[in-house]
Amino acid sequence: MEKLTIIKVGGKIVEEADSLKQLLKDFSQIEGYKLLVHGGGRSATKLAERLGIESHMVNGRRITDEETLKVVTMVYGGLVNKNIVAGLQAQGVNALGLTGADMNLIRSEKRPVKDVDYGFVGDVKEVNVNFLVSLISQGVVPVLAPLTHDKEGHMLNTNADTIAGETAKALAKSFDVSLVYCFEKRGVLMDENDDNSVIPRLNKADFERLVKEKIIQGGMIPKLENSFASIEAGVKEVIITSASEIGQNLGTVVV
Amino acid sequence: MEKLTIIKVGGKIVEEADSLKQLLKDFSQIEGYKLLVHGGGRSATKLAERLGIESHMVNGRRITDEETLKVVTMVYGGLVNKNIVAGLQAQGVNALGLTGADMNLIRSEKRPVKDVDYGFVGDVKEVNVNFLVSLISQGVVPVLAPLTHDKEGHMLNTNADTIAGETAKALAKSFDVSLVYCFEKRGVLMDENDDNSVIPRLNKADFERLVKEKIIQGGMIPKLENSFASIEAGVKEVIITSASEIGQNLGTVVV
Repeated sequence: MEKLTIIKVGGKIVEEADSLKQLLKDFSQIEGYKLLVHGGGRSATKLAERLGIESHMVNGRRITDEETLKVVTMVYGGLVNKNIVAGLQAQGVNALGLTGADMNLIRSEKRPVKDVDYGFVGDVKEVNVNFLVSLISQGVVPVLAPLTHDKEGHMLNTNADTIAGETAKALAKSFDVSLVYCFEKRGVLMDENDDNSVIPRLNKADFERLVKEKIIQGGMIPKLENSFASIEAGVKEVIITSASEIGQNLGTVVV
Repeated sequence: MEKLTIIKVGGKIVEEADSLKQLLKDFSQIEGYKLLVHGGGRSATKLAERLGIESHMVNGRRITDEETLKVVTMVYGGLVNKNIVAGLQAQGVNALGLTGADMNLIRSEKRPVKDVDYGFVGDVKEVNVNFLVSLISQGVVPVLAPLTHDKEGHMLNTNADTIAGETAKALAKSFDVSLVYCFEKRGVLMDENDDNSVIPRLNKADFERLVKEKIIQGGMIPKLENSFASIEAGVKEVIITSASEIGQNLGTVVV
């Protein structure tokens, strides 16, 4: 099978002109088939503010009421996605912007209300990659916004890490998938105050030991749990690195 | 060649929940290959207003400054496009939302400043339909927003009628294209006060005569001039009708 690199970048890097420009340059230089998943939360919060819509976050997740859903559909699906697509086209990359509604790529269900009512947030139920596989094989580079749909006419807000993970798993049947999560650190660190203490390779036994020893903690735990789940579902490797080092074989490789 | 129906609908009909729902039902019932081009001007004006951005129109065209470009990218490429796509998916239509930047579908150039500086408005230079033809042939239904790009990293605002006309011409090499422009009247009227005076067929000689006689006037003249240009460029037929009558073989057929 051919290699496919899936890069997930957070909001900050794609929302500032300079860092976006650098990212698109680095991304365009990755060889072979590739796919980009982006966030856009800061721009959504900014637009919501200008419109007088309050942003409520619970456990780092946005509560998405009807007005907020319109904001994220505009910002993720329109502004951020199309700026990335146009930027990549300028670099000679044949980008195609997509949400989960397009070609019914990702169907989700509105999250059931338990302790928290997250509103119009979708939990992924089904990923349909047939058309995507054919386009990727022809050289098209998909750019995925963190939005899905319920197949009943409604868009839903879905976490970008989840979009990346679920898409990677679905594409693992057709490609050797390398899934790269970019974040603000250079990888999983042995010492959070030392940027040079990146753990180069991490297996599940080591991960569990490091969690017990409280070396790995906070938001990195669910990120790594999802990474191991992806590996178990057929993804070849998951890399956790900083956006400024994509394509350089740096960061932490989860095996 | 197989038949392809291209429907262009204006802003109003896709921006109100009830009329959009009916349109998507009617559209989903059109048999064979199809493609939808939409506007969204009213929603753009509304969002701009809420953000304190003034909308300036000259000859019915929006002056697109940097802030306005962000607004139309969000509204056309995000909100309106994705709501249509999700709505069509709910009707079992495998819709795919696109701008001219996606797959480099429509490259344009920023309109040169003459009497008026239209700002970030793009004049179409090149339409690349290769990937689109392959997707349409596989049953995917493209939904085009009135946005293009300059292949240098910038989105540009482009009139939806122009998008429909240029796309129809480019696809005419691969399909028997029927191009349908929906507007508020039932077709080209002999008497503008009589909705039942629709001219069923109109050729160029009759058109020129009716313009001289001032029976056809105003915005209908450029619409029909574009229609005749499309026919001359290989489009099989152009139909001018109301959105409530699409798929019913009513309206004015330009031959």
